[in-house]
Amino acid sequence: MYNYNIGVIGGSFADKKYCNIAYEVGKKLAENNCAVFCGGKEGIMECVSHGVHDSNGMVVGILPGENRMEGNKYLSLTIPTGIGYMRNFLIIRASDAIIAIEGYSGTTSEAAFAITEGKTVVSIGNLQIKTKDTDGKLVHENDPEKAVEIAIQEAKNFVEKFH
Amino acid sequence: MYNYNIGVIGGSFADKKYCNIAYEVGKKLAENNCAVFCGGKEGIMECVSHGVHDSNGMVVGILPGENRMEGNKYLSLTIPTGIGYMRNFLIIRASDAIIAIEGYSGTTSEAAFAITEGKTVVSIGNLQIKTKDTDGKLVHENDPEKAVEIAIQEAKNFVEKFH
Amino acid sequence: MYNYNIGVIGGSFADKKYCNIAYEVGKKLAENNCAVFCGGKEGIMECVSHGVHDSNGMVVGILPGENRMEGNKYLSLTIPTGIGYMRNFLIIRASDAIIAIEGYSGTTSEAAFAITEGKTVVSIGNLQIKTKDTDGKLVHENDPEKAVEIAIQEAKNFVEKFH
Amino acid sequence: MYNYNIGVIGGSFADKKYCNIAYEVGKKLAENNCAVFCGGKEGIMECVSHGVHDSNGMVVGILPGENRMEGNKYLSLTIPTGIGYMRNFLIIRASDAIIAIEGYSGTTSEAAFAITEGKTVVSIGNLQIKTKDTDGKLVHENDPEKAVEIAIQEAKNFVEKFH
Repeated sequence: MYNYNIGVIGGSFADKKYCNIAYEVGKKLAENNCAVFCGGKEGIMECVSHGVHDSNGMVVGILPGENRMEGNKYLSLTIPTGIGYMRNFLIIRASDAIIAIEGYSGTTSEAAFAITEGKTVVSIGNLQIKTKDTDGKLVHENDPEKAVEIAIQEAKNFVEKFH
Repeated sequence: MYNYNIGVIGGSFADKKYCNIAYEVGKKLAENNCAVFCGGKEGIMECVSHGVHDSNGMVVGILPGENRMEGNKYLSLTIPTGIGYMRNFLIIRASDAIIAIEGYSGTTSEAAFAITEGKTVVSIGNLQIKTKDTDGKLVHENDPEKAVEIAIQEAKNFVEKFH
Repeated sequence: MYNYNIGVIGGSFADKKYCNIAYEVGKKLAENNCAVFCGGKEGIMECVSHGVHDSNGMVVGILPGENRMEGNKYLSLTIPTGIGYMRNFLIIRASDAIIAIEGYSGTTSEAAFAITEGKTVVSIGNLQIKTKDTDGKLVHENDPEKAVEIAIQEAKNFVEKFH
Repeated sequence: MYNYNIGVIGGSFADKKYCNIAYEVGKKLAENNCAVFCGGKEGIMECVSHGVHDSNGMVVGILPGENRMEGNKYLSLTIPTGIGYMRNFLIIRASDAIIAIEGYSGTTSEAAFAITEGKTVVSIGNLQIKTKDTDGKLVHENDPEKAVEIAIQEAKNFVEKFH
């Protein structure tokens, strides 16, 4: 069994800088025996999957379509859902804590949903959610190694509090 | 049949100012023969339902639980889902355009999801989503009558573009 | 407000006999002030919608796609979901009791799910579910007027028991 | 990567005979490098998980609640969903082919949904679905080794046809 389920979210486009960060995040999560959940497609999703893959870890793609083949080539497991972008919220439900790397409205939506569900989001990059109930639930940390450390600690807190 | 499906989203707590605005929004939507979709509970959801009710309109509560009785007393129809806050995204899927009134992380999540799905959000109050893909899809308008006008125009555009 | 939410399920193809029955079921449900939930498409779904429509009732189409225009022309409300046939289970969640009219594997799936969720299915036609937990939850009644009466009584029991 | 995703469905109660069969099915699927998807709880779900576990395979529990701890102790991965029994249909969406072992209305519902979605169900035990569209999609085979062989062949056909 894996220590924690960590969701990694971000856009389907990623520039070189954030792709490298996502790759590092994936490697570190795998080295810490975490199962990584993502949307399974391109961009940040593919970069984090690549990192997990290169550390022989577990990376699960929760896919929007009904076709397993739409997943990127680094995934350990492909889970088609057929519910489109609503699959984003299954990633959040599956995860004990979340790391958000850059991203657009889809990432904002997922991250805000995580906060609504009482889970912590560690943000690397531009994510901004300014509502009264985000205090302490949205943590900004641009160093990938430290972001992984915080996410694991928050996952531990979540699992202990919840159970 | 109703002209358009308009989603009205906002927090389960509402102060007097925003409750009055939500009530006005509900009245105007009903007067324009729109079916109103909301989360069916308290706060902004109840205030908008009240306004629709007082104009003899149609207001649908998409409920988080499995119990129809959890809906507020102004709803025309109660639709329990049993999927918790994931029901938020069914409200967005059901709607041609959205009006967001204040709100917290849950409202941010819904609004950002709407933008991801190509639907316009008219914001009354504090909502902020700052990603590159929101341009033109998030409109700020604090006057309830004008917000309803914009939402109806955007719903019209959405239906025409999509079909 | 409507007295009960009644789901009417059945195939997207219907021969004349069962279409007439579905039409009668729709009329009777509307005359008894029930909101009718269905899949919103052709076949049995369209026939029951027609009946509700001709009695000025409320018939809601929970649609598989993201396009409101895919609903049949008799619907009072169109609710697109974008989750494909998984929308079948939202119809069951929305309903206090279910009437199944003929149908194929999709109808069997919905009816069995209703039983799993503790709701009664009144079957007109060929539906067969032979498991140990269906006793009393699957009622066969081929007369549409009597089937509606039973469904309303079971909806009443469900609402009272649950609340 | 695993060769195929195979869903194994069945009741949350299992007598010794069917528990042993489920265990054998789990072992054989793991030996054939298939990822096994199940509901993650007791009964048949636990027995099949045990078999996969003892062959060092991959068994994923798609859980009804929001709590990862509700899964049985043999699971490789726990995926909480918070959507109750609607999680059944995510198991079907995730799978290329399905093996049904005994079961009640919940299993019938899942199996019928699989058929609706064009996937083959191999039934060990009592499952009966008698609709016109099940022909060839519901295969009865009580020998666990042969049932696994058929399921893998059908998964292969599904993946090839779909892609």
